[in-house]
Amino acid sequence: MNKPLNISELEVGYDVPAKIGMDEADIQTPCLVLDLDALEYNIKTMGQFAKDMGMRLRIHGKMHKSVDIALLQAKIGNSCGVCCQKVSEAEVFVRGGIKDVLVSNQVRDAAKIDRLARLPKLGARTICCVDDVANVADLSAAAQKHGTTIECLVEIDCGAGRCGVQAGQPVVDIAKAIDAAAGLKFSGIQAYQGAMQHMENYQDRKDKIDIAVAMVKQSVDMLKAEGLECDIVGGGGTGSYYFEGTSGVYNELQCGSYAFMDVDYQRIRDEKGDLISEFKNSFFILTSVISHAKADKAICDAGLKAQSVDSGLPKIFGRDDVEYIKCSDEHGVIADPNGVLKVNDKLKLIPGHCDPTCNVHDWYVGVRNGKVETVWPVSARGKAY
Amino acid sequence: MNKPLNISELEVGYDVPAKIGMDEADIQTPCLVLDLDALEYNIKTMGQFAKDMGMRLRIHGKMHKSVDIALLQAKIGNSCGVCCQKVSEAEVFVRGGIKDVLVSNQVRDAAKIDRLARLPKLGARTICCVDDVANVADLSAAAQKHGTTIECLVEIDCGAGRCGVQAGQPVVDIAKAIDAAAGLKFSGIQAYQGAMQHMENYQDRKDKIDIAVAMVKQSVDMLKAEGLECDIVGGGGTGSYYFEGTSGVYNELQCGSYAFMDVDYQRIRDEKGDLISEFKNSFFILTSVISHAKADKAICDAGLKAQSVDSGLPKIFGRDDVEYIKCSDEHGVIADPNGVLKVNDKLKLIPGHCDPTCNVHDWYVGVRNGKVETVWPVSARGKAY
Repeated sequence: MNKPLNISELEVGYDVPAKIGMDEADIQTPCLVLDLDALEYNIKTMGQFAKDMGMRLRIHGKMHKSVDIALLQAKIGNSCGVCCQKVSEAEVFVRGGIKDVLVSNQVRDAAKIDRLARLPKLGARTICCVDDVANVADLSAAAQKHGTTIECLVEIDCGAGRCGVQAGQPVVDIAKAIDAAAGLKFSGIQAYQGAMQHMENYQDRKDKIDIAVAMVKQSVDMLKAEGLECDIVGGGGTGSYYFEGTSGVYNELQCGSYAFMDVDYQRIRDEKGDLISEFKNSFFILTSVISHAKADKAICDAGLKAQSVDSGLPKIFGRDDVEYIKCSDEHGVIADPNGVLKVNDKLKLIPGHCDPTCNVHDWYVGVRNGKVETVWPVSARGKAY
Repeated sequence: MNKPLNISELEVGYDVPAKIGMDEADIQTPCLVLDLDALEYNIKTMGQFAKDMGMRLRIHGKMHKSVDIALLQAKIGNSCGVCCQKVSEAEVFVRGGIKDVLVSNQVRDAAKIDRLARLPKLGARTICCVDDVANVADLSAAAQKHGTTIECLVEIDCGAGRCGVQAGQPVVDIAKAIDAAAGLKFSGIQAYQGAMQHMENYQDRKDKIDIAVAMVKQSVDMLKAEGLECDIVGGGGTGSYYFEGTSGVYNELQCGSYAFMDVDYQRIRDEKGDLISEFKNSFFILTSVISHAKADKAICDAGLKAQSVDSGLPKIFGRDDVEYIKCSDEHGVIADPNGVLKVNDKLKLIPGHCDPTCNVHDWYVGVRNGKVETVWPVSARGKAY
């Protein structure tokens, strides 16, 4: 399972949807296609923003689960490392050459803690989150067993309603326990406001982030008063990075979706009420029409096995005349009121939600100027444990 | 990519969630767990029904995408072969030893047709559906090129609203074209009523199927008048098999979900208004509590990357005191009003919809009497093309 892939040995259709050098028209559908020009534009744009703000950018690898894209983000997009959500993802990124990995989540199972504690031996700075003082002893024991250091961030629930403690004294209590534990290093705060990322209205998003920033600032100040400095004050997503980036409190952004974009993130609006447009659609599900037995409906080959519809149906890129209106396991129903589509026509779908859509595919087919330029595995696909 | 797997070489956590012989308590989460007793019970129950009705049972492999389970269904569950939805799935099943495979879908792309036409060379009876007379020449040319026979069913849209022609003359027209084409064999009708499978009310389901059965009967009779016999009149799912099975018109059932069951199928009711209970829950997402920083909410490690929520949230098996109430990319929020859960507690989730949930995982962990008895790959996972 950890062998280098030789794409040229794989059979198109059975193993892979495309090969390098192939015409875009010959790609087997449904599959994920990346517009490499748009991808690089997005990666550079966010990298420049972070640089201009004097922020570190730790790209969120859980979005694309791709070692190749993470390495590209380091090369041209100013990223300092990767965050991800699972130990198994972190293992993939570290084995793939990423030297600085944050598991921006709680690691509680004994076997997972043991695996996390082994990662520094592979040459990677290894960081995880903590929201329970009871976790500290387990992490410390594993790090000591392996002779490594696990860096720990205290996670604050600044509005997402998932993991994380309340700001203030609970943060200080856990930070002190980490600081006192052998094999661990207190490295700062994790404070990602997940719940506001997709609010359409700018002021609604800003109000939520203002609350989060105040919580984080209070905690940073209390820690400082105890002699505990935060190397990392991390958070921020594609729907909020300009807030954290100008907060004067956060110093590390953790954006993921900006590289690809999706329908859900493209619903949000800026201060003037306009749709936010600093990032391009680089990420598509390529699909083919397989049936047009009804005059006003085309049936395509991308259904629930080719995407996640948790945040709504996909949009058809660059087309106003046809609309994806229904999704079942293997089929999409496309309203085609004027009967413009034909069998074998290909369409590019912008997924409703990029992260779980990446996770159902094995490959990214990167395209430029009508040719397949790259075929990248979704390296950490299925790495949920 | 087509090498036999040696499970014992794989690392628990990185490659696989469990190993054979392991205690159930040590399985890495989130992952798919099969209760093997319940699975075998379901497989035998449907097999017995089909036998009693004098029907063939062609199990739907697109549900579980597992060669191992398909072989078990042939061994103990009376199945005559597999149906699936994609050529890439058919390739996996044929390479895995299944000798009779129906792609219950349209195959239109030239490369896919070519791959389909090669399957009989691997020793498998190969069948596909047709809903457009324009498809016949392409299928025929590919079969002749490879010196093989592709069997064809004419697909009728009997209410699903996806692929398929109207019953009656359109069916006869396509059947005659198939019958006349070199390399093809007309083998019958595909008529799956997908839209009624999940209607809760028995009479609503029956009304829809009565319409479908009438459509199919008319078409079978018209074909017979033209001298065209239907070897296969196929359809039927877990929500309808008793209707097709007693229709006197259908002769082949294509059920899939009965082997696993899910929340969506367990909403449907029988003639007396009771929940249908002939199949057991054999299929679960095993998940662990990773955070309980709030007194009344536990956070578990199974989110959108571990399941599809297109048909609603999962239920927690065997528990009335806690409830899965929210799902984000990597987390589930569990209402725990009495604070009964602790970090590292494990829960079994019954997925809302089994098919697309199988498709996000790489492995099934089969459990009996508290021990891991099997670790099966989701052989055709990601085979969407």
